[in-house]
Amino acid sequence: MKVLFNGRFVERSECKVDIEDRGYQFGDGVYEVIRVYNGTFYLLHEHIARLFRSASEIELVLPFSEAELRDQLKELIIINKVDDGGIYLQVTRGTAPRKHQYKPGLKPQFIAYPLPVEKPVFQQQTGVSVITAEDLRWLRCDIKSLNLLYNVMAKQKAYEASAFEAILLRGGVVTEGTTSNVFVVKHQIIYTHPATNLILNGITRRKLLELFQKNGWPYQEKKITKDQLLTADEVFITSTTAEVMPVTVIDGQNIGAGTPGRLTKEVQKAFQHHILLETSKK
Amino acid sequence: MKVLFNGRFVERSECKVDIEDRGYQFGDGVYEVIRVYNGTFYLLHEHIARLFRSASEIELVLPFSEAELRDQLKELIIINKVDDGGIYLQVTRGTAPRKHQYKPGLKPQFIAYPLPVEKPVFQQQTGVSVITAEDLRWLRCDIKSLNLLYNVMAKQKAYEASAFEAILLRGGVVTEGTTSNVFVVKHQIIYTHPATNLILNGITRRKLLELFQKNGWPYQEKKITKDQLLTADEVFITSTTAEVMPVTVIDGQNIGAGTPGRLTKEVQKAFQHHILLETSKK
Repeated sequence: MKVLFNGRFVERSECKVDIEDRGYQFGDGVYEVIRVYNGTFYLLHEHIARLFRSASEIELVLPFSEAELRDQLKELIIINKVDDGGIYLQVTRGTAPRKHQYKPGLKPQFIAYPLPVEKPVFQQQTGVSVITAEDLRWLRCDIKSLNLLYNVMAKQKAYEASAFEAILLRGGVVTEGTTSNVFVVKHQIIYTHPATNLILNGITRRKLLELFQKNGWPYQEKKITKDQLLTADEVFITSTTAEVMPVTVIDGQNIGAGTPGRLTKEVQKAFQHHILLETSKK
Repeated sequence: MKVLFNGRFVERSECKVDIEDRGYQFGDGVYEVIRVYNGTFYLLHEHIARLFRSASEIELVLPFSEAELRDQLKELIIINKVDDGGIYLQVTRGTAPRKHQYKPGLKPQFIAYPLPVEKPVFQQQTGVSVITAEDLRWLRCDIKSLNLLYNVMAKQKAYEASAFEAILLRGGVVTEGTTSNVFVVKHQIIYTHPATNLILNGITRRKLLELFQKNGWPYQEKKITKDQLLTADEVFITSTTAEVMPVTVIDGQNIGAGTPGRLTKEVQKAFQHHILLETSKK
């Protein structure tokens, strides 16, 4: 496998970073995961734009333009023959003697490489179980940063409970999953947390809001309590790799009939259609 | 310089880690900074005990015993001839294909190396200016983890304002500095935030509380508001490298007479005495 390493293509086994890379000691960097279908990036522009926004929020000046990055990523999937999968990319502030504060002029460290992604077809059909957990993360969850320790801790708790995801609650309000956004359906209206500092505004989330509008499915960006979550008619979570995933059990309790809901399936269908539309025109 | 790298001593220039080290992609690890005076570690046992506690809180099983680590660190400062300075050490959960959840049996990645520390003698005499900033960090600040991005952002803001530190405020309450604990003196009583999930319980902080008790200086672990901070008689911050540092200006406003306070100087003296006591018996 070849890794895009500071603009050059390097053998995976040779990709090492210094122990004083600020990503390693402070999590001082940002990242994206982008899906590839049929040899084509899906929503590439949106991911790149979000990367630039995240970087800007932490005052990290990226070492490439949006167009340069796009071209390099396209080369990356060609070189690695990625047909169906994804790529992971991260940029850190660079290497310097360890101190919290940094001086201008550091050379950011950039990596991007293919990530195997298996479309969770079976789970998309049957739905998944999730748990809930307290949301103890920082108050800038809108930045897609490398500070992911709490996401790791909650996701691990989910996996140890044989659950697919942990849905996080801050002060009794559903924010998002550790690696996903959460949607709740009640009386045919779809609810999801507003895109504030408390959630990452998912690329799939944004695309779905567009599709809701286009299809005339009523939705509101609104805070949902844990009670409202557990008594919802339908629940689904979304992410770049899980796509639209029905949630049928939360903390051991069935949601609705305990099977994927009607509207959830409609949303899945609309999203799959959009993926095909965008990635078959290669 | 030789780095303690997974239990072996390795040339600094050869110390690289894999791009899928979980420290690099998730900040999934813990660390300590330990001071060396006169060729002797200061409060080594306390730092090691805290490292083990941090690791345990994130369910990271350290690849050494406390005694093994102590012996290796002592060898590290001998090999590198560290007489006056410090060491930095961090342990991450190890390397695995990128996924939030992890499997048992990962091999933790451990590094420790000398860090130059200059005793800030001049600033300890004259005092420093600091700024205040919102505390937007996660709710497990008691864990000394590698998720330090917000600390970096606030510290950078301080440096760009020519200030020594940023004192953080959560809901109007003083928690701690980005790399220090905060103490406030009013009417001869010393106040500091209780050791909850909202602060890191500093090793210097703990030692000072013992010294307050021993010297009969009244103190309370109690929440202090921003108003109480700004109208305090004296303020000082503490850390392993700054030791006991008088704060004379906050957000451009003098604290007390704008010079280090009487009690602050007593505390400094008692702390220096303790350092000498502990590190001259080599």
